[in-house]
Amino acid sequence: MAEFMTGTKQRSPGATRSGGAGGDAGAGPLDGQEAAALLERTRALVDPELRAAVESLPGSMRRVALYHFGWEHVDGSPAAGNAGKAIRPALVLAAAAALGGPGARVAAVRAAAAVELVHNFTLLHDDVMDRDTSRRHRPTAWTVFGDADAILAGDALQALALRLLAEDPHPASGAAAARLADCVVELCAGQHTDTAMELRAPDEVTLDEVLAMSEAKTGALLGCACALGALYAGACDEDVVALDGFGRQAGLAFQLIDDVIGIWGDPQRTGKPAGADLAVRKKSLPVVAALASGTPAAAELAALYGKPYVKGEAGDGGEIARTALAVERAGGRDWAQAEAADRMSLAMQELARAVPAPEDAGGLLALAEFVTRRTV
Amino acid sequence: MAEFMTGTKQRSPGATRSGGAGGDAGAGPLDGQEAAALLERTRALVDPELRAAVESLPGSMRRVALYHFGWEHVDGSPAAGNAGKAIRPALVLAAAAALGGPGARVAAVRAAAAVELVHNFTLLHDDVMDRDTSRRHRPTAWTVFGDADAILAGDALQALALRLLAEDPHPASGAAAARLADCVVELCAGQHTDTAMELRAPDEVTLDEVLAMSEAKTGALLGCACALGALYAGACDEDVVALDGFGRQAGLAFQLIDDVIGIWGDPQRTGKPAGADLAVRKKSLPVVAALASGTPAAAELAALYGKPYVKGEAGDGGEIARTALAVERAGGRDWAQAEAADRMSLAMQELARAVPAPEDAGGLLALAEFVTRRTV
Repeated sequence: MAEFMTGTKQRSPGATRSGGAGGDAGAGPLDGQEAAALLERTRALVDPELRAAVESLPGSMRRVALYHFGWEHVDGSPAAGNAGKAIRPALVLAAAAALGGPGARVAAVRAAAAVELVHNFTLLHDDVMDRDTSRRHRPTAWTVFGDADAILAGDALQALALRLLAEDPHPASGAAAARLADCVVELCAGQHTDTAMELRAPDEVTLDEVLAMSEAKTGALLGCACALGALYAGACDEDVVALDGFGRQAGLAFQLIDDVIGIWGDPQRTGKPAGADLAVRKKSLPVVAALASGTPAAAELAALYGKPYVKGEAGDGGEIARTALAVERAGGRDWAQAEAADRMSLAMQELARAVPAPEDAGGLLALAEFVTRRTV
Repeated sequence: MAEFMTGTKQRSPGATRSGGAGGDAGAGPLDGQEAAALLERTRALVDPELRAAVESLPGSMRRVALYHFGWEHVDGSPAAGNAGKAIRPALVLAAAAALGGPGARVAAVRAAAAVELVHNFTLLHDDVMDRDTSRRHRPTAWTVFGDADAILAGDALQALALRLLAEDPHPASGAAAARLADCVVELCAGQHTDTAMELRAPDEVTLDEVLAMSEAKTGALLGCACALGALYAGACDEDVVALDGFGRQAGLAFQLIDDVIGIWGDPQRTGKPAGADLAVRKKSLPVVAALASGTPAAAELAALYGKPYVKGEAGDGGEIARTALAVERAGGRDWAQAEAADRMSLAMQELARAVPAPEDAGGLLALAEFVTRRTV
């Protein structure tokens, strides 16, 4: 654990129990440097395992997967790699370390790679279903290799993930595989709900539905990552469940912040145009909360969301700005920020249950704050 | 094992070692009744496990899966079920029984269900990729529920398969899960090669490529089914490998016969129009063997395959009949039948290696003959 620590003072999970934690992290000592170091360290530990698994694929699927992970260009030449931030494997390792010390962290490297493989399998398939053309600043795999190869590469990554665990002699690997497979089913259910909601009118979608979808689509795998780390640390069932809850609640907080950024994010920082989610009429959490508010602004928002946005029609983003203002006036922004703080508070409670000593919880805490503290 | 046996005399695997076995099974005592009884018994044992797994899925994917398995109509009302012939789970159980007796057969029921779940996951995805509109005499799942739901249901079935094994306390379950996951990668590679070959000119495809593709796409899962049965019987590595080889070779024999039926099958028996595979210019094994023969008929076949078939253009199937004749004259039919007999002979050799006593091999033998003895 010691080598995970930087010199910065740790926020105690006990101290955050009284609510509101995470929302004001910007003022605290957790300036993201510890998380950045953790993520870098995770990449160094997990990438060789991950890369060996991908390299074991037969030619065709190896090529698609190496491209997807950013390790190869379309023409097969080596690329610097931009395989995402490795939040999920970092959570596996941090959870293992929190409950079992440095030895458990090293033992959990395969489990961390398995979680990252599952995450990337879902990205490959979701991009096909959602017809998304860009991922990590590059054309998505299906746009380059076609639907069939992107589907097959995703199928193979799921198989690789479960093979990694099945081949791992660690005593927790069986329970971890069962949990990860169960999580895949939940991820699929979340993606189904998401695609089905796209086809429904905005006022037919309830906030509870969107929260449940977000928990399944985003929270489940973050929870599973933490639970796998706990399993590899030999933790008791109660602590495994608590770590799962920590990851789920942190995941929901992350989604809420992400949705706020999708509306009010600074294009300079997000790399997306302002109000990108509003332009595609995304039923994100702040929007659905605003629609359900019963305010005059909700009625205005419903009218705007009732017809597709046509770029430039209302003159340089005027309509988008009006839509964002309606969400804000209807209370969608305040609700999302308060809800994110509540979820972080719940996450801290779960964490404190399983890891009462603040000095052991530092890594998990730093990661949770890292994913939720991104400023708008 | 005893309850598997009917009163019919068994062909000894030892007696078939000298080659040519399987090709003339029609004259033998294995008239398919034993295999039919085995398949029915398998359904009775495995269906409850399979159905419980599918019923555990969240609503949306459960609906797609229940429809795909033939257990529900599109509207969700119960259907009689037409979930295929259960060849693969029957092979798991028969292999377990051959190497470990009736106790191993019962212990292997979860593994049998897992193999059937993987088979159906690949069917769901293959139908999406190949745009096939009919499966088991019903519209395919993607035509009814859309691509996204068919992809998600397939993803979930793969996860269910590996979860079944991960949750199985049997000492062989970990090794079985690793083997099944490995097989999924091979199945994906086979499907990739198949879809990629569709886009190439017939004379660019070699016979070795088509044989390798058929082994990956069809042989691998039949081999894996037998290997899982052996693992659950506590067999040594050598016997597991032999059983895998038996299933693979029998699977290739099956594919060869299936390809012959796809050209010369009786429409009354196959339910497909005569020469169905020729009409879609399928690069099946007899066709590719014929094209590679260097005969004048090969040149005629290449010319016919060089342009798409337009129904009725050459008058009521005249062109299809001419194409079938060219394949036959170029030796494609004879080659496929001889190759099928050779593969069955190899399968018998592998089987005899692991299961020397004929009375123990009866179930596997009956199943292998059942899948390959279908007359044209």
